[in-house]
Amino acid sequence: MTTARKNLANAIRALSMDAVQQANSGHPGAPMGMADIAEVLWNDFLKHNPNDPAWPDRDRFVLSNGHGSMLIYSLLHLSGYDLPIEELKRFRQLHSKTPGHPEYGYTPGVETTTGPLGAGIANAVGMAIAEQTLAAHFNRDQFNIVDHFTYCFLGDGCLMEGISHEACSLAGTLGLGKLIAFWDDNGISIDGHVEGWFTDNTPARFKAYQWHVIEHVDGHNPEEIRAAIAQAQTVTDKPTLICCKTTIGFGSPNKAGSHDCHGAPLGKDEIAASREFLNWPHAPFEVPDDVYKGWDAREPGARSQSQWQHLFQEYQQLYPELGAEFQRRVIERALPDSFAEKADLFINICQQQGQHIASRKASQNTIEVFASMLPELMGGSADLAGSNLTLWSGSKGISKDDADGNYVYYGVREFGMSAIMNGISLHGGFIHYGATFLMFMEYARNAVRMSALMGIQNIFVYTHDSIGQGEDGPTHQPVEQLANLRMTPNLHTWRPCDTVETAVAWKAAIQRQDGPSALIFSRQNLDHQSRDTQQVENIAKGGYILTDCDGEPEIILIATGSEMSVANQAAQLLNEADHKVRVVSMPCTNVFDQQSKSYKEHVLPKQVKTIVAIEAAHVDYWHKYVGSYGKVIGMAQFGESAPGADLLKHFGFTTENVINTVIDLKQQNMAL
Amino acid sequence: MTTARKNLANAIRALSMDAVQQANSGHPGAPMGMADIAEVLWNDFLKHNPNDPAWPDRDRFVLSNGHGSMLIYSLLHLSGYDLPIEELKRFRQLHSKTPGHPEYGYTPGVETTTGPLGAGIANAVGMAIAEQTLAAHFNRDQFNIVDHFTYCFLGDGCLMEGISHEACSLAGTLGLGKLIAFWDDNGISIDGHVEGWFTDNTPARFKAYQWHVIEHVDGHNPEEIRAAIAQAQTVTDKPTLICCKTTIGFGSPNKAGSHDCHGAPLGKDEIAASREFLNWPHAPFEVPDDVYKGWDAREPGARSQSQWQHLFQEYQQLYPELGAEFQRRVIERALPDSFAEKADLFINICQQQGQHIASRKASQNTIEVFASMLPELMGGSADLAGSNLTLWSGSKGISKDDADGNYVYYGVREFGMSAIMNGISLHGGFIHYGATFLMFMEYARNAVRMSALMGIQNIFVYTHDSIGQGEDGPTHQPVEQLANLRMTPNLHTWRPCDTVETAVAWKAAIQRQDGPSALIFSRQNLDHQSRDTQQVENIAKGGYILTDCDGEPEIILIATGSEMSVANQAAQLLNEADHKVRVVSMPCTNVFDQQSKSYKEHVLPKQVKTIVAIEAAHVDYWHKYVGSYGKVIGMAQFGESAPGADLLKHFGFTTENVINTVIDLKQQNMAL
Repeated sequence: MTTARKNLANAIRALSMDAVQQANSGHPGAPMGMADIAEVLWNDFLKHNPNDPAWPDRDRFVLSNGHGSMLIYSLLHLSGYDLPIEELKRFRQLHSKTPGHPEYGYTPGVETTTGPLGAGIANAVGMAIAEQTLAAHFNRDQFNIVDHFTYCFLGDGCLMEGISHEACSLAGTLGLGKLIAFWDDNGISIDGHVEGWFTDNTPARFKAYQWHVIEHVDGHNPEEIRAAIAQAQTVTDKPTLICCKTTIGFGSPNKAGSHDCHGAPLGKDEIAASREFLNWPHAPFEVPDDVYKGWDAREPGARSQSQWQHLFQEYQQLYPELGAEFQRRVIERALPDSFAEKADLFINICQQQGQHIASRKASQNTIEVFASMLPELMGGSADLAGSNLTLWSGSKGISKDDADGNYVYYGVREFGMSAIMNGISLHGGFIHYGATFLMFMEYARNAVRMSALMGIQNIFVYTHDSIGQGEDGPTHQPVEQLANLRMTPNLHTWRPCDTVETAVAWKAAIQRQDGPSALIFSRQNLDHQSRDTQQVENIAKGGYILTDCDGEPEIILIATGSEMSVANQAAQLLNEADHKVRVVSMPCTNVFDQQSKSYKEHVLPKQVKTIVAIEAAHVDYWHKYVGSYGKVIGMAQFGESAPGADLLKHFGFTTENVINTVIDLKQQNMAL
Repeated sequence: MTTARKNLANAIRALSMDAVQQANSGHPGAPMGMADIAEVLWNDFLKHNPNDPAWPDRDRFVLSNGHGSMLIYSLLHLSGYDLPIEELKRFRQLHSKTPGHPEYGYTPGVETTTGPLGAGIANAVGMAIAEQTLAAHFNRDQFNIVDHFTYCFLGDGCLMEGISHEACSLAGTLGLGKLIAFWDDNGISIDGHVEGWFTDNTPARFKAYQWHVIEHVDGHNPEEIRAAIAQAQTVTDKPTLICCKTTIGFGSPNKAGSHDCHGAPLGKDEIAASREFLNWPHAPFEVPDDVYKGWDAREPGARSQSQWQHLFQEYQQLYPELGAEFQRRVIERALPDSFAEKADLFINICQQQGQHIASRKASQNTIEVFASMLPELMGGSADLAGSNLTLWSGSKGISKDDADGNYVYYGVREFGMSAIMNGISLHGGFIHYGATFLMFMEYARNAVRMSALMGIQNIFVYTHDSIGQGEDGPTHQPVEQLANLRMTPNLHTWRPCDTVETAVAWKAAIQRQDGPSALIFSRQNLDHQSRDTQQVENIAKGGYILTDCDGEPEIILIATGSEMSVANQAAQLLNEADHKVRVVSMPCTNVFDQQSKSYKEHVLPKQVKTIVAIEAAHVDYWHKYVGSYGKVIGMAQFGESAPGADLLKHFGFTTENVINTVIDLKQQNMAL
């Protein structure tokens, strides 16, 4: 190790231990342990431009062991990103650019939010899929305008998590040759030395996934690291795992190699001892000029990007249509100009056709129409294509041998799928929908949340939405899942009641770029609802008056999805019996909540006390809308195995029960 | 294959295709494909007694690919369990004993509810851990009163799921020699031939987990199957995976080997053709007497159990104390007589001591006291022992070399842990608590739900409960998770506000046998609350009046956990300013909801309009309690990275904000 290299790596170590100490909270062990690997990767290999973190063809770098956030903050600061030393001094403080875990959107150069273990490597797999497929869509002879690596650091924790199995297994199947992962093999997790709970032969495991595995790399030896990366880059048909033996907290004479340095400050004395050990005499947060110079990636980055820019300009001239599409899809992330208009046309056709079909089928019909306008629309399902109805006539699976497709056969890997979707979305170039049964959203739940937290586009398609799915029984029948999705900040959850609302939900999800959408569909057929033009327009507001009485209503029924029919039938009979009943369709409570106060009060006037919500999902959610004098007809228990129609009857989703409930409640409320 | 054996297996095939056809729904492919394996295992190896499905030392059989439920129903029916042919004819109908997926508690002999893929193998790992550790606790020289195998069938779907990685990796580390799994290697999943999405070298993968792997077994050749099981039984220090090459839907001449027979009835014509192919001329649901005779396990089962009973009687004489403990823990599943009294004593001491500590610390103190009374209390954490505070002075980790412990170091495997907990609970002999951060409950979410669905005891300990955890930021700060848990049917979720409520929550969780409990604890210190004797008793009701005003209240503040202090301080100041404020502590809404109407109205009188709930969790949940005129001070967005105290202030959990909110609201409500 030359002194120079050593010094460059030690800058990471010093900044990490100082920032954690200043915050009195954080994880110095991983940054100090992985500093040498990071130094070689960033200084000798990484293609990036600190002045333009959005350059589409940059290499992607993911820190899957996100608790080691000071590693990435040090790298970004040292290499010249807009992350001044003051931000490092404010590590883990409110509104700093250096939150406890790397957060997408907070810090220039952070490619994804990590912290929940294993999710980062799955994001990286998604980025590598996006690169491979985008390259297949756009690259032409001599013009590899999409051509970058995805690098990922991961720790023992990531490897223990099940999501690493799902994502890495699929990465092997898809032969993602541009994905290079570094295992920080330090033998330590929070509970101590891992032998008591983690005895996998990890290289053998990854070989079983069809990865290229480079073993026995000394993670503190730059030459070995350099050789390993160079070798990994030559293997183009397999992802590579580089197994780096490291010492956690390297540089701390008394705490290195132990879990004591994993998740707590080293303490002033140990930091002083480490400074001595590392021969780093500089004050906290002080980095000598020559070290800054050694790290500065701005000039080579600008050169590199400029070369790409030239290539892209030539490409645009030779392939003007492709060039314009690349500009639109990847650089501007814009929809085709005509999309909204054509989507509205389709929505109106749905209203006119009045089909009585399952909303999962309506979803497939919508995909068929929208996908033909959107080459960026990529689909997928966790081994339920025929049940989720996610394939359309233009669907083509991507594979190791042919990445020029638009559909990912994810296998039975819900969590992997969803975190990979996040990676694909973060990479850019695609709008991606991925599907499973609503129940198995639970397997993937944290990736859905991460999508919402990052504020990135994704379309989660969830079919078999309730007890209405029938015979599969309570293990497959969602109850509390809808409420869970609706309460996830920044997620828009749609549960359409017919073909028209389905098409509107899809349009909204495709147009929404600052967060994910969950589209909830039925297995069983649903009635069509009549609407005038204004009502069709109002669907996009998330909630609207679907049928109304003459004059002011005294009763409001709120329903979604498959329960809309029952609500409407009950309302019709009640209105015939001179009750004044309004029916409100509420396909997306999240969007409805964002409407103006006056619109919301127009739909749900305050003076109406008798409000009944009807939905085959958990009762507790709807109290927000029905208030103190209302009632919820919903589920407060698990489902059963039986034909769907039997179950809906059994659990009270019948016109009769709605009518009786409403009349009882109205009488109670009149007595107040 | 002898004709006799073939006939026995074909009975499964016929019953499966007939029942699926009659239900017009279900999965014939797996039962027909695995019939030969099941026949050999059940008739030549399985130790069980159809007349006593609760015999503690029976072998456990888990169908992880639970969609093949007709396999297990056929096996139970044929071998003599109380599952008459009429129940098979009512496959997938309301209130039958043969729901779409095997459900624990519905069908005698079904050991666990399966269907969500991969969960079954994790349950089986749990059962094998329980067997190994229970054996270590109770077996004495010559007296192996705990000595049985756990067998598990699993399919490609189970192997793709991440949970299989977590559970099987740990099973290898723990050297679970009595666990024998059968991989139904039929090359088919729902989307078709698996090569496009599943190319793992599964034997190599399991060898990497330190399993014994038996490859290349013809799953339709009884001799090969028999030899493999016999060999597996001899390997006592490693779990075994038997890789069985099978044909899905074996017996169906036109659909075998294709996903067409995976999840849909074969159809009348194909069933007729299959009958011919299998030489099974009998009418639907008709099984010849000699086939029944070949299957009948009642006599050998009774003999086997009787031998065990004799052994246990001798054991009781030689080891009367251990015998009584076995009787209590395993057979009766009863707590020590003195538990409740001693627990109450501890609760009262907590009230008197008035400690100002984090509830995670209070939890550890409670574990210390309760665990010393309960040798069946087994602990664990997903690599967060030092953060979850789950270790007590008597904790001893179990390992491959020494299973005589009471703590599982789960590694970073939340989902695996939780599903393993379900298996341990189902096995019997233990009350198990397992811990992670509340946020990473999400990784494990479906296993928590399965625990609630099965109605089995489990104690899920979740610390770092809110933004109050601080610097780790929004990836680690729960918002919507509490609502999600509370809305899970049959789960009791406790969020205690101090040491006393913590101890009461633990007592309730230990006493509750018909469902799981989630205990939510803070990272940060919490104030102690004063209570009189009646109030201490009322904690167990889930919600109670903690402080009250003179006379009828006009304002009610509801709070839980760390927000109790703010509520109480605000109430004190408001009462001093002549508002009449009551404070209700609501540590467990689920239990509160079960109280009598009169008690609930006593705590939350209908006439009080100004109700404000204060909780650093999602606002939407509390509308149920605050009603149309109330307000919720909570979270409607993600958290941030900053010191916890800064965040609580930033998001409005301050006395000042509570007071302002209450006064504004009261004025609004007076104007009504």
